[in-house]
Amino acid sequence: MNRVPDTELVKIPGGTLLTDSPEEGRALAFAIARHTVHNIQPDLDVLVAGRPKYATTPESLIAASQVVAIEFQTIAAANNYWRS
Amino acid sequence: MNRVPDTELVKIPGGTLLTDSPEEGRALAFAIARHTVHNIQPDLDVLVAGRPKYATTPESLIAASQVVAIEFQTIAAANNYWRS
Amino acid sequence: MNRVPDTELVKIPGGTLLTDSPEEGRALAFAIARHTVHNIQPDLDVLVAGRPKYATTPESLIAASQVVAIEFQTIAAANNYWRS
Amino acid sequence: MNRVPDTELVKIPGGTLLTDSPEEGRALAFAIARHTVHNIQPDLDVLVAGRPKYATTPESLIAASQVVAIEFQTIAAANNYWRS
Amino acid sequence: MNRVPDTELVKIPGGTLLTDSPEEGRALAFAIARHTVHNIQPDLDVLVAGRPKYATTPESLIAASQVVAIEFQTIAAANNYWRS
Amino acid sequence: MNRVPDTELVKIPGGTLLTDSPEEGRALAFAIARHTVHNIQPDLDVLVAGRPKYATTPESLIAASQVVAIEFQTIAAANNYWRS
Repeated sequence: MNRVPDTELVKIPGGTLLTDSPEEGRALAFAIARHTVHNIQPDLDVLVAGRPKYATTPESLIAASQVVAIEFQTIAAANNYWRS
Repeated sequence: MNRVPDTELVKIPGGTLLTDSPEEGRALAFAIARHTVHNIQPDLDVLVAGRPKYATTPESLIAASQVVAIEFQTIAAANNYWRS
Repeated sequence: MNRVPDTELVKIPGGTLLTDSPEEGRALAFAIARHTVHNIQPDLDVLVAGRPKYATTPESLIAASQVVAIEFQTIAAANNYWRS
Repeated sequence: MNRVPDTELVKIPGGTLLTDSPEEGRALAFAIARHTVHNIQPDLDVLVAGRPKYATTPESLIAASQVVAIEFQTIAAANNYWRS
Repeated sequence: MNRVPDTELVKIPGGTLLTDSPEEGRALAFAIARHTVHNIQPDLDVLVAGRPKYATTPESLIAASQVVAIEFQTIAAANNYWRS
Repeated sequence: MNRVPDTELVKIPGGTLLTDSPEEGRALAFAIARHTVHNIQPDLDVLVAGRPKYATTPESLIAASQVVAIEFQTIAAANNYWRS
C-alpha cells in the first residue's frame, strides 16, 4: 500500500481549532476534511484513482463542499467568529 | 489547465464573516460555497462542462442550496443575526 | 432566456431574518430556499421543466424539505424562537 | 387537483414552537416536516401515489427521519430542552 | 398489517431528553431515530423486509448513523454535555 | 454471526465527551461514528464484506466524513472548543 504520509493522518492539523483569521480557519476546515478521508482510506493510490471521476462530477463536489461547510461551522464557533 | 483566477480561490472572500446586512451575508454564503468548489476543482473548463446537467437537475440544485444554507447559518450567527 | 423576475432573485426577501411569528418565519425559510435555487438557475423555463419529475418524487420532496428545515433553524434562532 | 386541506398547509401548526413536553415537541417536528412537503406538493393524489415505494424503502425512511431530526433540533432549543 | 407495538411508537421514549450519562443519551438517540422510522412506517413486516439490503449496504449504514448523530447533538445540548 | 467484540459496541467509548485535546476529541468522533455502525450492524463479516467498495468510492468516503464532522461538532462544543 502506498500509504499517505503520517502528517496527512493527523486528525486536527496544528492541534487546535483556533486560528488568526477566517481565511486560516477555512483552510483548517479543508485540511480536517481531507485528513478525515485519509484516515478512513489511507491508501494514496486508491485516493488518486478515485479523483478523476469525483472531481469532475458536480454533485460530488457539492457533497465535499458540504463537509467543509460543517467543519467550518465548528471552527468559526470556536473562534467566536473572529468578531474582534 | 484553464485555472480559475486567484480571486476565485480566496476561501473567505473579503476576509471576514461580518457583513452589513442579511442580503450581504447571504451573498457571502454563496461566494464561500462557490469558492469551496473552486478550491477542490480549480479547472474552469471542468466546472463549465459540468454545469449544463447540474444546473438543470432539481436534485442537484437542492443539494447546492443546502450547502449555501449551512454556510449562511455560520455567517448569520457571526453577525448575531443582524438583530439591531 | 426566460429569466425569473428580479424580485425572485433577492437573496433575503424583506432584507431581514426577523419576523412577527413562527408562521411568517417559516414562510421566509421557504422564500429564501426558493430564491437560492433561482440565483443558481435563473432560467424559469428550466425550473418549470424540472418540476414535474421533482415534485412527484418523494425523495426529492424530502431533500427540499431538509433545506427549508435548515433555513428555518437560522431564522428561528434569529428570532429567539419567538419565545415571548 | 385533489388538494390537501388548508389545515395541512399551515406551515407551523399551532403557530408556536413552544410545547409542554418533548413528546409534543416531537409531534410538532413531524407535523412541520409533513406540512412542508404539503406546501411544496399540495396534490394529495400525487403524495398518495408516491407513498408505496417511499414507505418501503429504508433509505427514504432514513432521509425523512433526518428531516424530522433537524426540525426537532429547532423545537428542542426553543423549549430550552424542557429542562425544568 | 403486523403493527409495531405501541411502545415502539412513543416519539420520545421515557418522555425526556435528560439522561444520567452520555452512554444513556446515545442510547436515547438510537431509540428516537428508530421510533421515528416506526412512526412513518409502522408495519413491522415492511421494516423487516427492508433490513437485509439496508443493513448490508455501507452507504445506508452511514446515512442511518448520520441521523443518530443529529439526534445526539440535541440530546447532548439538552444535558449540557454531561459536563459535571 | 461473527459478532464485533463488546468493546466495539459501547456507544460512547470512554463514557464521556470531554477530552484533553482537539486531536483526542476528533479521535472520539471517529470512534463514536464507527461504534454507531457496529450497533446497527454488529456482524463483522458483513462490515468487512462492504468495505472494498465503500472505501474506494469517493462519494461514500465523503458521506462517512460528514458523519464524523457532525459528531465532532457535538464533542467540540462539549469541550468549549478547547479554548484555554
